[in-house]
Amino acid sequence: MESAATDAELDSLVQDAIVWASQHGLVVGLGGTAPPAALIHAPLSLLPVAFPASRFQQAKAAMTTFNTLIDRVAADEGYLFDTLELAGQQDDFTGRLLQLLQDSKPARAAAAAAAGAKEVVLGVHRSDYMLDAPSGGFLQVELNTIASSFACLSSITSQLHHYTLQRLAAASSSSSSSDAAAAALQLLSASRLPSNAALQGICRALAAAVVAAGGPGAVMVMVVQPGERNAYDQQWLQHTLWTEHGIVTRRLTLAQIPDCLQLQPDAAGAGSRLVFADSGTPVGLVYFRLVHHVVADSGTPVGLVYFRAGYTPNDYPTDKEWQARALIEASTAAKCPTVAYQLAGSKKVQQDLAAPGVVERFMGQQQGADLRQLFAGLWSLDNITEPTTAAVIQDAIQNPDRFVLKPQREGGGNNLYGPELSAALQQGLAAGGDSLAAFILMQRIVPPPQRSVFVRGGAWGEDESLSELGIYGTFLRVGDEVVINEEVGHLVRTKTSSSNEGGVAAGFAVLDSPLLSEPGEGLLPPQLDGSSGSTAAAAAAASWGESGGVLAAARALLQQQQQQQQQQQQ
Amino acid sequence: MESAATDAELDSLVQDAIVWASQHGLVVGLGGTAPPAALIHAPLSLLPVAFPASRFQQAKAAMTTFNTLIDRVAADEGYLFDTLELAGQQDDFTGRLLQLLQDSKPARAAAAAAAGAKEVVLGVHRSDYMLDAPSGGFLQVELNTIASSFACLSSITSQLHHYTLQRLAAASSSSSSSDAAAAALQLLSASRLPSNAALQGICRALAAAVVAAGGPGAVMVMVVQPGERNAYDQQWLQHTLWTEHGIVTRRLTLAQIPDCLQLQPDAAGAGSRLVFADSGTPVGLVYFRLVHHVVADSGTPVGLVYFRAGYTPNDYPTDKEWQARALIEASTAAKCPTVAYQLAGSKKVQQDLAAPGVVERFMGQQQGADLRQLFAGLWSLDNITEPTTAAVIQDAIQNPDRFVLKPQREGGGNNLYGPELSAALQQGLAAGGDSLAAFILMQRIVPPPQRSVFVRGGAWGEDESLSELGIYGTFLRVGDEVVINEEVGHLVRTKTSSSNEGGVAAGFAVLDSPLLSEPGEGLLPPQLDGSSGSTAAAAAAASWGESGGVLAAARALLQQQQQQQQQQQQ
Repeated sequence: MESAATDAELDSLVQDAIVWASQHGLVVGLGGTAPPAALIHAPLSLLPVAFPASRFQQAKAAMTTFNTLIDRVAADEGYLFDTLELAGQQDDFTGRLLQLLQDSKPARAAAAAAAGAKEVVLGVHRSDYMLDAPSGGFLQVELNTIASSFACLSSITSQLHHYTLQRLAAASSSSSSSDAAAAALQLLSASRLPSNAALQGICRALAAAVVAAGGPGAVMVMVVQPGERNAYDQQWLQHTLWTEHGIVTRRLTLAQIPDCLQLQPDAAGAGSRLVFADSGTPVGLVYFRLVHHVVADSGTPVGLVYFRAGYTPNDYPTDKEWQARALIEASTAAKCPTVAYQLAGSKKVQQDLAAPGVVERFMGQQQGADLRQLFAGLWSLDNITEPTTAAVIQDAIQNPDRFVLKPQREGGGNNLYGPELSAALQQGLAAGGDSLAAFILMQRIVPPPQRSVFVRGGAWGEDESLSELGIYGTFLRVGDEVVINEEVGHLVRTKTSSSNEGGVAAGFAVLDSPLLSEPGEGLLPPQLDGSSGSTAAAAAAASWGESGGVLAAARALLQQQQQQQQQQQQ
Repeated sequence: MESAATDAELDSLVQDAIVWASQHGLVVGLGGTAPPAALIHAPLSLLPVAFPASRFQQAKAAMTTFNTLIDRVAADEGYLFDTLELAGQQDDFTGRLLQLLQDSKPARAAAAAAAGAKEVVLGVHRSDYMLDAPSGGFLQVELNTIASSFACLSSITSQLHHYTLQRLAAASSSSSSSDAAAAALQLLSASRLPSNAALQGICRALAAAVVAAGGPGAVMVMVVQPGERNAYDQQWLQHTLWTEHGIVTRRLTLAQIPDCLQLQPDAAGAGSRLVFADSGTPVGLVYFRLVHHVVADSGTPVGLVYFRAGYTPNDYPTDKEWQARALIEASTAAKCPTVAYQLAGSKKVQQDLAAPGVVERFMGQQQGADLRQLFAGLWSLDNITEPTTAAVIQDAIQNPDRFVLKPQREGGGNNLYGPELSAALQQGLAAGGDSLAAFILMQRIVPPPQRSVFVRGGAWGEDESLSELGIYGTFLRVGDEVVINEEVGHLVRTKTSSSNEGGVAAGFAVLDSPLLSEPGEGLLPPQLDGSSGSTAAAAAAASWGESGGVLAAARALLQQQQQQQQQQQQ
């Protein structure tokens, strides 16, 4: 059994990877009772995961179109109000965001009407996908328009895998290679890792927005959750904004903002600028997961408010947090996102865009068709007596494993699957009316499992895995001019196939990166590898973990190395 | 009181520095009950410490001469035996090293006699100094020829201080500066930080030695202590050796070496090569403070054995560790250091070199005089009835604060000061004979205190401080040819002035870096700043911490910034 013999070699690669991560800032807070400054390597996958090259390129290429779509949807406030009205009644969070959009209209109109005034709108989005075995490509899971995280740690993970594949190649290159080892070396070539400069790309957009809206000397306010554990991902943005663009970041919680920031009428009459409060008294700024009292730069203009919090109702325990949103929305500072952008990224809008003709109305037939290839089936439950909806509901009750029931509100964590999904739909039908309007029904994506080495807290284990791909996009509009519309990088998160939910920060998933492959090379799962849907293919899928995929190729290389050494000694 | 007002600003600089350190691998193991992979920023000084530029350059310039001195002393084995004979009788550790030098003579002679054989000798040294107020310059504390640590973390600390001074300058440049602030800005310019590429320089020398002695495909064995907490400093060497020179490092403890390595007669008859054992069975290699069982590269040649352990008797609990030294010494692998180099760096030899005419005998009058400027007074206690020695002992008993009594053996930690020093000398005199021969008496260096911000475990505090400067040198000789003789970088460690002893790893000292200054600028302590020895100067020294020095200049900058802001608001 080769796996036992190569476990020792894998272990040494893991230890190398842990040290590399610790040296290069691929870290998270240790948490628990440790000192707040204590760290540990981020949860990682030792090796990259195989993705079909053409499908990866398709997802990347679509990102600038998604950026444009969000901007057009957000600009169509009538559409937002119509689409979200019912959801807003069902869900208090969506309702308050809609109210904020309504209430800020006069301030936004005044700013727009002033001479020379130009609205600055920044989008930093991440479109998330999973591979779907039945369709053979990526299907969109969700499109995040607020607080898209892990761009920085993901960029460093791509570098780590570059390093790991080079170590692996070097470990085997000293042997005179067999054909099998040569093939494995070629499959695991570091040149198959797409470059990933998400950190640099996002900072470029943040910096441009700060300057466009705030002018020289303006700072970025990063809105953070109190006690953020993933602060190192955020700190990399701050660090790069400073070293590459000379821009200072201030971290504030929503609750601190009404005391720390204030509106100041612009000298030219073009709306109200957002500046640090002029009290001169110390205000609390959040550094490094701790709250410290420092003297703020009173009067300093805020060019951009960048939200890494505020996407879940839990971030608004009191009215003060809503006051913060209102203050920001009424200012001429760039917001990433605006309330309109946040609503444009809601699951309800995502579902509506998937309905026949809707995305086409915003993007035209050609681009609409391009995006639609990446949409999973999505059904509104606003009108459960409408014949199509009623049929889908019955289908889902009968075949719950082909569907996901998602709550309309943001923040995740409460998706329903299987028997729970059936039960919730049946209860909804029994209650009647709009009792299911707070949910949307979604085609369940069926990703083909692969095998991964999970490295967490200094320990590792091998398991069957599922991976999710995120593509980052940046979009900056100043007035009518689109200054930036870019796809800037990617994120891969991998979790064990036995877990339905969970992210990196919650400890379920690990950071990963893609290794691009063509069908027929043996790296991709058989469901994606050009095999037919026969029972032979099913058998191939069952045994594939032993002989195919990235981990199997790595083991083949290490095994080959051992055999060479043993032969040399005989 | 300005310090209270600027504490908040300093705190924000500290938090920045902690994040920077965590992102850039300036880390140590967390230790305690945390997972072995848990980390925390290395103990550090927030700001650099002021050193007189000319004296710093003098210490740097002397390093290549010290490198040559060590090589000549080590080559003169008769001198080593004569000088260390008595110390070897008193101190078992020195005795065993001498025995090893004696026992390895035949193997070394055989290797040298073979056709085409060239001995490869590598030195990686660190000469440590403290500023001495009475003499105004640096005096040598010790010259380390084995396991000189912290080169890597020190290189990163230099980068950190570059970053910190730039942040400080940026924090104040937004204000229209007063003359005082402009002066402070100039004093704290990052251009005053000397560049420090100790990591790169040492790796260059290690790589050259591996190739010279082992040829292509050879690896470096790093000899480490079990459970090393400072592994990240060592891992940076391994990482850089790999990424910049393509050379693999294997970590082994002394106890593992007799099982893992063996001698193999060279095909050309030129001595015995050191190779990994051919058992084919898994051997234990030490990764990342843990011992893992991996399949070693059986038969792989070892080009260099680099000791980061073996400098203290505690590293030799059984005879197995001495077997390891004998095995290594008998091989043609380069050793850093050889036993002869290790003995040449002993305190006893250091003391003997300081005696009249000795260093001059090795280096000639001119270079001898250059080195002697950096020597503190050092007195042998081998012959306590000799009139000069007897007089010095009486002086030390009467004035113990002007002396240090150092044990001859390596490893540190047991120096005697003050009343303990007097008592030990009086006991020695009473016992008579060579009862004090295991000690040397040294002039106590009187460093002028400065003020520093100590950052440890995420917390910080300000205190009076003393700093120690280390200069790294590398020396590579192949046969008679000196291939490398370089000064490659520096280390500054700073501790509170109330502590007599203690290093960074033990938690007493913090990593620091030098800020070069000229007398009269106000950055240097008054004792070094060109003032006379009057009572006025003493008063200036007493109040200097409030108004002079690096920390005071930084506070002046931050204070200036606050005042500007308050004025803008009135």
